Amino acid sequence: MSNEEKKETNLEEIEVKTAKEESKAPDFAIKKIGDATIQSPLSDLKNLDLKDSFYVNDERDRVIFDSKVNAKDFPDIKSFERAGPRNKIFFDPDDAKAGIVTCGGLCPGLNDVIRSIVLELEQWYKVRKILGFRYGYAGLIPNSKYQPVALNHEVVESIHLRGGTILGSSRGDQAVKEMVKNLVDRNINMLFCIGGDGTLRGAHALVEEIEKQGLEISVIGIPKTIDNDIPFVECSFGFQTAVEVSKNVLECAKIEASCTPNGVGLVKLMGRDAGFITSYATRANGNVDYCLIPEMKFPIYEKGGLYDCVRRTIGDKGHALIALAEGAGQHIIGTSGETDASGNKKFNDVGQFMRYDITKHFKDKFDTEINVRYISPSYVIRSVPANSQDKIFCADLARYAVDAAMAGKTDMMIGYWHGEFTHVPLEAIQNLKKRVERSSREWTSVVASTGQPPEWW
Amino acid sequence: MSNEEKKETNLEEIEVKTAKEESKAPDFAIKKIGDATIQSPLSDLKNLDLKDSFYVNDERDRVIFDSKVNAKDFPDIKSFERAGPRNKIFFDPDDAKAGIVTCGGLCPGLNDVIRSIVLELEQWYKVRKILGFRYGYAGLIPNSKYQPVALNHEVVESIHLRGGTILGSSRGDQAVKEMVKNLVDRNINMLFCIGGDGTLRGAHALVEEIEKQGLEISVIGIPKTIDNDIPFVECSFGFQTAVEVSKNVLECAKIEASCTPNGVGLVKLMGRDAGFITSYATRANGNVDYCLIPEMKFPIYEKGGLYDCVRRTIGDKGHALIALAEGAGQHIIGTSGETDASGNKKFNDVGQFMRYDITKHFKDKFDTEINVRYISPSYVIRSVPANSQDKIFCADLARYAVDAAMAGKTDMMIGYWHGEFTHVPLEAIQNLKKRVERSSREWTSVVASTGQPPEWW
Amino acid sequence: MSNEEKKETNLEEIEVKTAKEESKAPDFAIKKIGDATIQSPLSDLKNLDLKDSFYVNDERDRVIFDSKVNAKDFPDIKSFERAGPRNKIFFDPDDAKAGIVTCGGLCPGLNDVIRSIVLELEQWYKVRKILGFRYGYAGLIPNSKYQPVALNHEVVESIHLRGGTILGSSRGDQAVKEMVKNLVDRNINMLFCIGGDGTLRGAHALVEEIEKQGLEISVIGIPKTIDNDIPFVECSFGFQTAVEVSKNVLECAKIEASCTPNGVGLVKLMGRDAGFITSYATRANGNVDYCLIPEMKFPIYEKGGLYDCVRRTIGDKGHALIALAEGAGQHIIGTSGETDASGNKKFNDVGQFMRYDITKHFKDKFDTEINVRYISPSYVIRSVPANSQDKIFCADLARYAVDAAMAGKTDMMIGYWHGEFTHVPLEAIQNLKKRVERSSREWTSVVASTGQPPEWW
Amino acid sequence: MSNEEKKETNLEEIEVKTAKEESKAPDFAIKKIGDATIQSPLSDLKNLDLKDSFYVNDERDRVIFDSKVNAKDFPDIKSFERAGPRNKIFFDPDDAKAGIVTCGGLCPGLNDVIRSIVLELEQWYKVRKILGFRYGYAGLIPNSKYQPVALNHEVVESIHLRGGTILGSSRGDQAVKEMVKNLVDRNINMLFCIGGDGTLRGAHALVEEIEKQGLEISVIGIPKTIDNDIPFVECSFGFQTAVEVSKNVLECAKIEASCTPNGVGLVKLMGRDAGFITSYATRANGNVDYCLIPEMKFPIYEKGGLYDCVRRTIGDKGHALIALAEGAGQHIIGTSGETDASGNKKFNDVGQFMRYDITKHFKDKFDTEINVRYISPSYVIRSVPANSQDKIFCADLARYAVDAAMAGKTDMMIGYWHGEFTHVPLEAIQNLKKRVERSSREWTSVVASTGQPPEWW
Repeated sequence: MSNEEKKETNLEEIEVKTAKEESKAPDFAIKKIGDATIQSPLSDLKNLDLKDSFYVNDERDRVIFDSKVNAKDFPDIKSFERAGPRNKIFFDPDDAKAGIVTCGGLCPGLNDVIRSIVLELEQWYKVRKILGFRYGYAGLIPNSKYQPVALNHEVVESIHLRGGTILGSSRGDQAVKEMVKNLVDRNINMLFCIGGDGTLRGAHALVEEIEKQGLEISVIGIPKTIDNDIPFVECSFGFQTAVEVSKNVLECAKIEASCTPNGVGLVKLMGRDAGFITSYATRANGNVDYCLIPEMKFPIYEKGGLYDCVRRTIGDKGHALIALAEGAGQHIIGTSGETDASGNKKFNDVGQFMRYDITKHFKDKFDTEINVRYISPSYVIRSVPANSQDKIFCADLARYAVDAAMAGKTDMMIGYWHGEFTHVPLEAIQNLKKRVERSSREWTSVVASTGQPPEWW
Repeated sequence: MSNEEKKETNLEEIEVKTAKEESKAPDFAIKKIGDATIQSPLSDLKNLDLKDSFYVNDERDRVIFDSKVNAKDFPDIKSFERAGPRNKIFFDPDDAKAGIVTCGGLCPGLNDVIRSIVLELEQWYKVRKILGFRYGYAGLIPNSKYQPVALNHEVVESIHLRGGTILGSSRGDQAVKEMVKNLVDRNINMLFCIGGDGTLRGAHALVEEIEKQGLEISVIGIPKTIDNDIPFVECSFGFQTAVEVSKNVLECAKIEASCTPNGVGLVKLMGRDAGFITSYATRANGNVDYCLIPEMKFPIYEKGGLYDCVRRTIGDKGHALIALAEGAGQHIIGTSGETDASGNKKFNDVGQFMRYDITKHFKDKFDTEINVRYISPSYVIRSVPANSQDKIFCADLARYAVDAAMAGKTDMMIGYWHGEFTHVPLEAIQNLKKRVERSSREWTSVVASTGQPPEWW
Repeated sequence: MSNEEKKETNLEEIEVKTAKEESKAPDFAIKKIGDATIQSPLSDLKNLDLKDSFYVNDERDRVIFDSKVNAKDFPDIKSFERAGPRNKIFFDPDDAKAGIVTCGGLCPGLNDVIRSIVLELEQWYKVRKILGFRYGYAGLIPNSKYQPVALNHEVVESIHLRGGTILGSSRGDQAVKEMVKNLVDRNINMLFCIGGDGTLRGAHALVEEIEKQGLEISVIGIPKTIDNDIPFVECSFGFQTAVEVSKNVLECAKIEASCTPNGVGLVKLMGRDAGFITSYATRANGNVDYCLIPEMKFPIYEKGGLYDCVRRTIGDKGHALIALAEGAGQHIIGTSGETDASGNKKFNDVGQFMRYDITKHFKDKFDTEINVRYISPSYVIRSVPANSQDKIFCADLARYAVDAAMAGKTDMMIGYWHGEFTHVPLEAIQNLKKRVERSSREWTSVVASTGQPPEWW
Repeated sequence: MSNEEKKETNLEEIEVKTAKEESKAPDFAIKKIGDATIQSPLSDLKNLDLKDSFYVNDERDRVIFDSKVNAKDFPDIKSFERAGPRNKIFFDPDDAKAGIVTCGGLCPGLNDVIRSIVLELEQWYKVRKILGFRYGYAGLIPNSKYQPVALNHEVVESIHLRGGTILGSSRGDQAVKEMVKNLVDRNINMLFCIGGDGTLRGAHALVEEIEKQGLEISVIGIPKTIDNDIPFVECSFGFQTAVEVSKNVLECAKIEASCTPNGVGLVKLMGRDAGFITSYATRANGNVDYCLIPEMKFPIYEKGGLYDCVRRTIGDKGHALIALAEGAGQHIIGTSGETDASGNKKFNDVGQFMRYDITKHFKDKFDTEINVRYISPSYVIRSVPANSQDKIFCADLARYAVDAAMAGKTDMMIGYWHGEFTHVPLEAIQNLKKRVERSSREWTSVVASTGQPPEWW
C-alpha cells in the first residue's frame, strides 16, 4: 500500500462510525483455521482450576468494548459513579479549607499524592487554605503535640523526588469526636485521608460523627496499600514500585543461590494477608522456582511437598529460588496471638523459621548440606520514591479526590476499575479484602512462571 | 471496632451476594453533603473542552462493574473475544512447529516476549520445535542470509535481563509469497509476529496468502510500539519503561535549566505521530512547563504563543522546561518529504530547529540572552531492559498469544482492554491510529500538570 | 587573557622541565595570608586524636610527587614491585594453560575479573587453554563432583553484566596435595586464585607444596573482599558498589525514621571485623547520626552513651539514623563461640539485639515509645553487578595478574597502592588485617559527617 | 592453621616494626619460578609504545610505600603540601565570613561540595556567616541582579540528593576589581571558588588584586571538571558518576547495534580536549570496538583506518560499537573558529558528521548499507546526583578546603595525589592541561579492552 493512500482515521471517528452502523452483533470476530478438537495439554495439570471457568469459551466470554456506560441505558447493570470534575461544585473556593492526613505504613508515592492535591486545589480550584496534619490521626486531635503545617505549591515543589511522606505517618485510631472538633475549630471543610483499611474505617467513622453533628465537611479517602489489597482498586499506588524493588532483590537471591553449591535463595517480602507483591515480583523476575503466599496453603514436609520439590529442583539446576510472603505458611508456624497498634495480628517470622527449618530438614531427612541465602529487604521496598507509572497514578488519584471533595461528595474513596477512576462508598469496602484468587491471572501466571506444582492448590 | 468482630469476607463471596440480592438499581451510591450549585472554576479555562463531555454527570456517567460479559446475555453490546487457554486446541503439540519474528524498532520487553512464548510452548503445551527468525521479515524469506535459530528454555533463560531482541530486527516488507513458501518449507504452522503497525499489516498480508493457498498456518500478532499508538491496546509493552527513562531525562534538563541564568531545558522525545511518551513523561516528571506533541498544534511566535509564555515562565521562576515530541510542531517546520524503509514520513528535526530558533527569537524579539540546554536521548529510552510491570505484561501477552495460536486462531493480535487481554482482528486496526485525544485524561492531566495554556488547544 | 595567547603545555613537558630546573627545594609552595596564631576550635573536641599527628604540620608533612621510583636511586626506601607487562616472559604461550578459581563470599566484579583474565590471556598473550574451576577450592580437588569448564572469549562475552561468578564459589579449604596433583594432572601452569584472606592463605599453601615438589606452576592471588580489609590494597574491587547499595538502604531508613514519631532507623551492614562499608556508606549518605563499627567500641547504656545521645537527637530532629556494622558492639553482646567453614567466628546478631534492646531501654529508662525501623540488606549489597569504577578496576587487576603470571611470578597477589598496581608477596599479608584506624581520614570523616561524639573513641 | 593460632596484627603495629627493623633493602620481594627469557607477544603489537618505558623493569620500577613524607628527611624530593586541619588557624571563627561560588558547566557533586563546606564551617569551625553567590562570577559583582543567599545547615540539609548546584552557575569572567570590592563590602574573608580551568584562573586573578590592595581574604579553589582534565587531581569529583551514566549509554548503543543488520552504534560523549570520560566509559562497558578521543589522531578513510576496521568488525560480529569524544577527529573536520563565553573553541559536531559520513562511505566505497544508531546523551551525564564515591570525595574535598581557608592559605586549590589530599598553588596549573597519555594505563587499557589497532597511535 502506498503511503499516500494510507488514510488515517482516528479512534474517535471510528467509534462514532461503529456506534451508528454496527450496533447489533458482537464485533471483532476472530478467524479460526479450523475447529479445535484436541484436548488441551493444560488439562494434565492436576487441580489447576480445571473446572469450566479456567478455560475461555469463545461463544460466551467477551470483554465489553465500552466500560463507561450511560446509566440510563443500562439501569440494571452494576456500576460505579465515575470520578472527574463536575460542572457545579459544592464548596465556594474562597471559603474552602482543606486538610490532608497520611496514615499507616509508608508507600511509594505518598508525597506525589500530597503534592498533587495541593497543586490541584491551588492552581485549578483556587483554594488557598490547605493544612497538612502530621503523623496520621495522631496529628488530627486538637491538642496533638504534632501541629499541622500550611501547604502550598512552594512547599510541595520537589517533595515528589523523595520517598516517604513530608507529613509523617502513624498507626492507630484517635477519638472520633476529638478529631471532628479539631476540624471544626480549624474550619476545615474537606479532609483527604490517605491510608489503608484502618484509615478508611476511621474516615467512615469521622463521616458518621460529622453527619450526627450535621456538619458540612467532606471526607474523601485515597486508598493506600503497599500490599495492593484494597477492593475496587485494580492496582494501588506505590505497588508497582514495590514490585520493581522486590524483583531486583529476587535477582540478588538468584545470583547468590546459583553461585553456591546446593544454594537456596530465600526472600521474604511484604504481604501479611495478601500475596500480590510476592506474586508480581515472582512474575517480573522470571526465575523464581517457588512462590509462597498467604492465600495458598502448601504442603511442606510431605512427599511432593515444598522441601521435596526443592530437592528435585536442586538436583536439576543445582540451586533453587523461593519467594515468600511474610504471611505465607501460617498454617505451619501459626501467629503469635499479639496485635499491633492498627489491630493487625502479629505473625511469627516465617522467613527466619524456614531459613533454619529447611537447612535442618535437608540435613536430617535428605542427608544433604544446603546453603540458604536469606534476604529480607523489609522497608527497602516501600521507602523509595515512586516510579513513573505510580507517579502518574498518584497525580490523577489526587486530582480526582479534589474534584470529588469540591463537588461535595463524602464518605467515599477514589477507586480504579477497568482503567477508569471511580467513586467508591467507604461502606462498600468495610468487610471486604482483596486477595490473590486461585483462578485469577495473578495466580495462573505465577504457576506458569515458576513451574511449581499446581496440584498444591 | 474490636478486632474480633472484624469478619473478613473475600471478594468472591461478596460478588455472589451482590449478584443475588442487589441485581437491580445501580450500586455503589455516593453520599453528597448537599447540592452542588456553584459553577466550577475550571470553566474559566478557555477552550479546555468545556463542552458537556468534559464534566462528569452523576446521573449518567458510570463505570461498569463487570467488563467481562457473557455474550449471550448482551448480544447487542460491542465486545472483544477474551484471550486465554481453550479447552480444545487445534494443533497437535507433537506436530506443532512455531516461528517467532521481531520487526521494527526496539522496545523494552522484546526478549521477555520471546522468552515467554518459548517457555509457554515448551513447558505447558509441550511444543518442542520453535524457530526464531532473524532480523525481522528480512529473515523470513527462503534464502535470507540470516538463518533462523532453534529456541528452547536454555537459550532463553537469561535473555530477559538485557534490552533489545536476541533475534535482531529490521524494518521493511518482504515478498509475501516468498515468506509463506519459507514457512511451508520449514513446516511452521504457527507464526508469532512481534511488531508495530507495518508488521501487523504484513502479518495480515501473510494470512491472506495463507488462506489463498488453503494452508493451516496460524499467524498471531503481538503489538509492539514504543509510542503506544496501536489501537485496542490500552498500554503497549515497553512503554512504561520508556516513560521512566524519559522522565529521568526531563529531570536532568530541569536541573540544567534551573542552574543557569535564563535557562531553558529542551528535551526531544520519541513520538512521531503520537505524543504518549512525551505526555506520560511530562506527568511523571511533574516539573515540565510546556509539553508539545504532534496531536496538538500550538502557537509559537504570536502573543500568548509558546515563546511569549516561556518568557513569562522565565520571568517567574528563572527558567523553563519544555518536553517536545519529535513529531510536534510540524505545522511550523514541515516534513522533509522523504520516507524511511517502513514507509514512515521523515520529519525535519524539530529539536534542532527549536533549540536555535528560540535562542534567536529571544535575542531578536525580547532582547534576552537565554541558555538552552537541549537533550535528545533518542535510542536510550528504548534499548534498556523492561521494568517489572512491562515484564509481567510481556509474559502474559506471550502466553495469551500461544493460547490463541494453539487454539487455531489466526489473523489476530493480542489486545488489552479494560485490564483484560483480548483477541483483536488484524483487519480492525488497519486504518486506525491511537492518538492523544484532547478530552482524554492523558491530555487534561498534562494540562493540569504543566499549567500550559489550555486555550492553545 | 586572549585565547590566542593561552599556551597549552602538557604534563609530560612540564615534568621534564621540572626534573631539569627545579630538582632542589620542595616545590608547590603555598601562599599564606599571614601567620596562623589562633588555636583551632577542633581542639575543643575531646579525644579526637588531638595528639600532634592529627594536625598537619606545614614544615613537615608532604605528599611525594612521584610515587613511582627508580629503586636504584632510592635503595633505602621501602617499596613495592610495580605490576605491568614484562619484556621477557617465562611461560611459552603455546604451552601455557591457565586455571581460574573464585572462592568465598560473592563480591561485585567477580565476573569482570574472570572475563578480563580470559580476554587478556587469549587476545594479548595468545594463551588458548583456560579452565575455570567450579565452586572454589572444592572444585580444585581431583575427583570433585564439580568439573571445571573451558573458558574463552565467547563464553565470557556478557558475563560482566550480571552479578556473582559464573564459576560458583564456596568457603573452606581442601587438601593441598590433592589440589596440586590435580593441577599437575591437568597440566595447569598458572592458577589465578580470586579470594580473600583464607583463599590467599590457601594459595600460599599451594605454592609451598608446588615448591616442595619442584613444579613450575605460578600461583597469583587476586584479592577479593567485600569488606575492603586486605592490606596493601587501597580499595578492593566491588567495595564501591557495595557502598553505593548500602548508601541507598541508609536513605530508605532515613525516610522511614523521619516519617514516624520518634523514629529510629537502624541499618545493619556487612563488616564483621572491619567497618569500611559502614563508614563509607555513612559518609556517602550524609544523613547518618551514629556510625558503629567493630574497630571502635562505644558506650551504650551510660550517660553520654549511644542511647542517651540518640534520645538527644530525637529531641532535636524528631528521629535518628544509626548505621551498624555486623561486627560492631561485640563488647556488648559477645560472640557465639562457633566458627563457620572458613574458620571465621560466628557473631551474635547485633542488629536483632539492638533493635529490641533500644526499644526496651527507651521504654524502661526514658519512658518513651520509639519506633525502630530495622533493615538488614545482607546479600543485596554484594550480589549486584559492579559499577563502572569497580569494572575498570577489575579489568586492570585481571590484566596485571596475567602479566605477572606470564612473567613467571608466583606466591604473590596484585596490590593497589598510591594509585598504582603492585606485586605483593602472599607472605606479607599473612598476619595483617586492614582496619579503620582512629586517626585515618576514613574515621575522622565519619565523625565529621555524623556529628557523633568524638570522645567515645 | 587453627583459628586460635591466627595472631592478628594490625597495620599500625607492622609499620612500626618495619620502620625499625627493615629500613634498608627494598621490601616486598616477589618470588619467581625461574628466569623469564621468552619475548613477550605484546611486542608484536606495532607502535604500542614499545620503547623501553612500556615494559616494567623488575630491578628498577618500584612503587614507594609511604607517599606521605617528612620534608626534612627528603629535602630534595618534589612534593606537595598535605591538606588537613592545622593546629593554629588564621581567621577568628567569630569574625570569619565565607563566600561560596560555583562556576562553569554542571558536574555531579556540586551540591555535595557546597553542603560540606557549610557543615564543616558551621559544625566544626563554628563559623556562622556563610554566603552563597548565585550564578558563578556573574553573581559576584556588586550590583548583580542575582543576589547572594545565606547558607546554613538547614538550607543545605537535603541538597546533595539532587543534581546541579543550588547556587546556579554561569560561564565567563567579570571585572576583577568589582568582584574584590564586593567581597570587601560584604566583609567576606574567605572565598571558595568551585570551578574549572577558567574559574581557577579567575580565582588567581582575584588573589592578585587582593594582594595589590593588601587585603586579608583567602581564596581557595576547588577543582571541578567533568572532563577530569585538571592537573594534580588524579580523579576529579563527578567524573566517576559521569562515567557510570556514559557506560550505560554505551550499553544502549551496543544493544541497538547488535539488533539491526550491519548495525553501528555511535555514541558521542563529553570531552572537548581530554578523552577521559570516553576512555573510562569504554573500559567500564567492555564491549566498545573503537574508542576515539581528542588526544589520539586516527586514520579514517585509508586502508587499515577506522572505516576499514569497522567493516572488518561488522564482518566478524555483525555489528560494531564506537565511542567518540566530542573533541575527537578534529584533524578531520576542523573547528568552527568561534569561541564560547569561557573562551573555549567551538568545535564542529563530529558526531553528526560521522553519523552521516560513515553511512555514505560504506555505501559508496564498500557497497554496504549500514544502520547507524547515533546517541548523544549530552547533559544527561553531568546533571545527575553524584554516586557514593563522588559524594565521599566531594565531602572530603570541601572539608580540606575549609581547613586550608581557616589556616589562612590562599591562591591554591585542593588537589588529590596518590590517594592524599594536597594543596596546589593556582599558579602551578595555569598553563597545564591533563590529557590521556599514550603510554598511560588509561590508554593501554582502552587498547586492551577494545582490540582497536594500537598501530594507529
